[in-house]
Amino acid sequence: MTDSADAAQHEQAETRVVTDQGVTAAAGFRAAGIVAGIKASGRPDLALLLNEGPDFAAAGVFTRNKVKAAPVLWSSQVLRGERVRAVVLNSGGANACTGAPGFQDAHRTAEETAAALSDWGSETGAGEVAVCSTGLIGDRLPMDTLLSGVREIVHELAGGLTGGDAAARAIMTTDTVPKQAAVHHAGKWNVGGMAKGAGMLAPSLATMLCVITTDVSATPAQLDQALRNATARTFDRLDVDGATSTNDTVLLLASGASGVTAQQDQLDAAVFAVCDSLADQMMADAEGVTKRVRITVEGASSEEEALVGARAVARDSLVKTALFGSDPNWGRVLAAIGIAPIALDPDRIRVSFNGAPVCIDGMGAPGAREVDLSGEDIHVLVELGMGAASASIRTTDLSHAYVEENSAYSS
Amino acid sequence: MTDSADAAQHEQAETRVVTDQGVTAAAGFRAAGIVAGIKASGRPDLALLLNEGPDFAAAGVFTRNKVKAAPVLWSSQVLRGERVRAVVLNSGGANACTGAPGFQDAHRTAEETAAALSDWGSETGAGEVAVCSTGLIGDRLPMDTLLSGVREIVHELAGGLTGGDAAARAIMTTDTVPKQAAVHHAGKWNVGGMAKGAGMLAPSLATMLCVITTDVSATPAQLDQALRNATARTFDRLDVDGATSTNDTVLLLASGASGVTAQQDQLDAAVFAVCDSLADQMMADAEGVTKRVRITVEGASSEEEALVGARAVARDSLVKTALFGSDPNWGRVLAAIGIAPIALDPDRIRVSFNGAPVCIDGMGAPGAREVDLSGEDIHVLVELGMGAASASIRTTDLSHAYVEENSAYSS
Repeated sequence: MTDSADAAQHEQAETRVVTDQGVTAAAGFRAAGIVAGIKASGRPDLALLLNEGPDFAAAGVFTRNKVKAAPVLWSSQVLRGERVRAVVLNSGGANACTGAPGFQDAHRTAEETAAALSDWGSETGAGEVAVCSTGLIGDRLPMDTLLSGVREIVHELAGGLTGGDAAARAIMTTDTVPKQAAVHHAGKWNVGGMAKGAGMLAPSLATMLCVITTDVSATPAQLDQALRNATARTFDRLDVDGATSTNDTVLLLASGASGVTAQQDQLDAAVFAVCDSLADQMMADAEGVTKRVRITVEGASSEEEALVGARAVARDSLVKTALFGSDPNWGRVLAAIGIAPIALDPDRIRVSFNGAPVCIDGMGAPGAREVDLSGEDIHVLVELGMGAASASIRTTDLSHAYVEENSAYSS
Repeated sequence: MTDSADAAQHEQAETRVVTDQGVTAAAGFRAAGIVAGIKASGRPDLALLLNEGPDFAAAGVFTRNKVKAAPVLWSSQVLRGERVRAVVLNSGGANACTGAPGFQDAHRTAEETAAALSDWGSETGAGEVAVCSTGLIGDRLPMDTLLSGVREIVHELAGGLTGGDAAARAIMTTDTVPKQAAVHHAGKWNVGGMAKGAGMLAPSLATMLCVITTDVSATPAQLDQALRNATARTFDRLDVDGATSTNDTVLLLASGASGVTAQQDQLDAAVFAVCDSLADQMMADAEGVTKRVRITVEGASSEEEALVGARAVARDSLVKTALFGSDPNWGRVLAAIGIAPIALDPDRIRVSFNGAPVCIDGMGAPGAREVDLSGEDIHVLVELGMGAASASIRTTDLSHAYVEENSAYSS
């Protein structure tokens, strides 16, 4: 996708995205979030999403980390069936690096959720229940507490604004605000979504938990295409700290409750819009963030090279600390992109901060050291002059708060 | 090289390295360091090293960054002649991203140094003078000040302890201590070295300024082999913040003044020992360091894979902040190595901190969360169980001081 198509899609999206509704913005879905007692803090920690149909088509993308959490292994297996009736999500523990016993825990969570839903009147099989977990890596989940919660939460399932909001709050970890987005397409069909993600947000795929719902009728293949198109250009281009979680999961569920059959391009646009908004919300609420930063590389010889270049700048600790200090230290941008494995000519590089040129043809521009970066939003534009391709990465600065939050997480 | 060969070479080295002598520990060299007035702080900022022969053989390795500072472009050209009589080094400015005028400045610095040395009685051509600069990227050097300094510094050249020490101090930027190392080989010949490096210390090649001297008689090819052997296993395996400087330069100069002809293996070992010590000193004095960290990957299917894995862990911001917090959060080590592009089986990974097992076969070990990491030295061992190869990376934690220092560098 070119940046102009990207921009057009983005613009189209922005006119219609609302952020006070999430997964229950689409018809046919109920959700809930409760305090099950998994978190020591007593905050909400268990969420459930139910698709009441008539369709149960689903698609998913998962972390590329080779160390995959048990719920990722379980849910990948569920998604191979292309049919999902419910998603049960917990915060307060990642159930990662827990071996075969951890996998048994995820399996049992799906079984108990299916049983509780069936008892409640919504016939569900364990193989139709995706499981997501988030929190500290390495510990077993408190299964008695979790399963009591599962039996309780089915009674809280609600549509409208309340259910989705409660679910979005229950999946938060170090997030300070819930993250929801919805698109209402011409009053006929809807896409809604919720996400959590604050740290360990990284370059390779989703890198957080996210569930998206729609009430169009769509095949699993259509959903898969819409989801991959969206995540490749939104979550995959969000890079807070270069760390890729063991638990990343993004699911897209379709109920068909609107009676409208999906047109691929419209579905793509709506799912993109929801993901784009959620990615923005995750950037703005990233651990320790004081600056919302967009790195754009233009004039690259391919979109892939533009992306590699933008990511190299976005991941550079010295660039990120300079931005924290509102310091227009453009030399660090040059040093960062110079080590990226892409075609470039140092003497042709141009850099600007928030539209002010700071480097022209590889040399400092007049007034470069005086550019004001004291605001919360910083756009770094690097023009390579090698071709016509471009790409952007969302990132943040590297602040004291990031160090503080992440040096005292497990203890 | 296997880790045991590495260790043997290291051990052999440690018995003989002294750190109170540097480039003038080898016969045939004089050095000096002065306050030329380039730094606003009034600290020493200009160093000169002179090789008085009878040999002038030299080798060098330079940054792999495609954005190369002017002195790197100049010195690479000088090194193609395989003959170096003098090295002039300044701190207080990197002369990087300064275009053709910056290159002219480096060229003129070499010319004036050659003229000043010739006037002083040591006939030197500009093409025999390497130039190194370190400091802020993007500004021209104050050439009048620098060239006055060049004319002054030739009168300060001294051998013994004083010259090398003064030179080592004059190349410091955010370093808090000078870095020197020397090996006296059986009382017959010597290798000495000095280095600066505190931030922008990264995975690809030298990543700092370093000059090594020896009084053996060696061909440029012998020096090149000794230098590449040493840097590949020392400076290339030091990764403070993943950032690769535009100015990295490591030079090895041989005077032949001892009258001893080099044996390659002995030369290799002595140069390795000096580089190893200097790499240790750079780790210990890295910007914001509170923990000296060694990441070792064992049981990899190749040394290259071990190195890629160790580097992935060493560069992970979440691992580094956890270590800053003395937090044995081993799940982050698993998440970091899981995204490295190497062969691994999550269920076979073992991790230990300072010898205490924290993860066995991909799952937490009893007592893992109670391991005491409050000391300054932390060894993270990751055993993959895939093969017999291993490699280590030196790194540091990610601290408040790192953020502080690097958010206010150029201003």
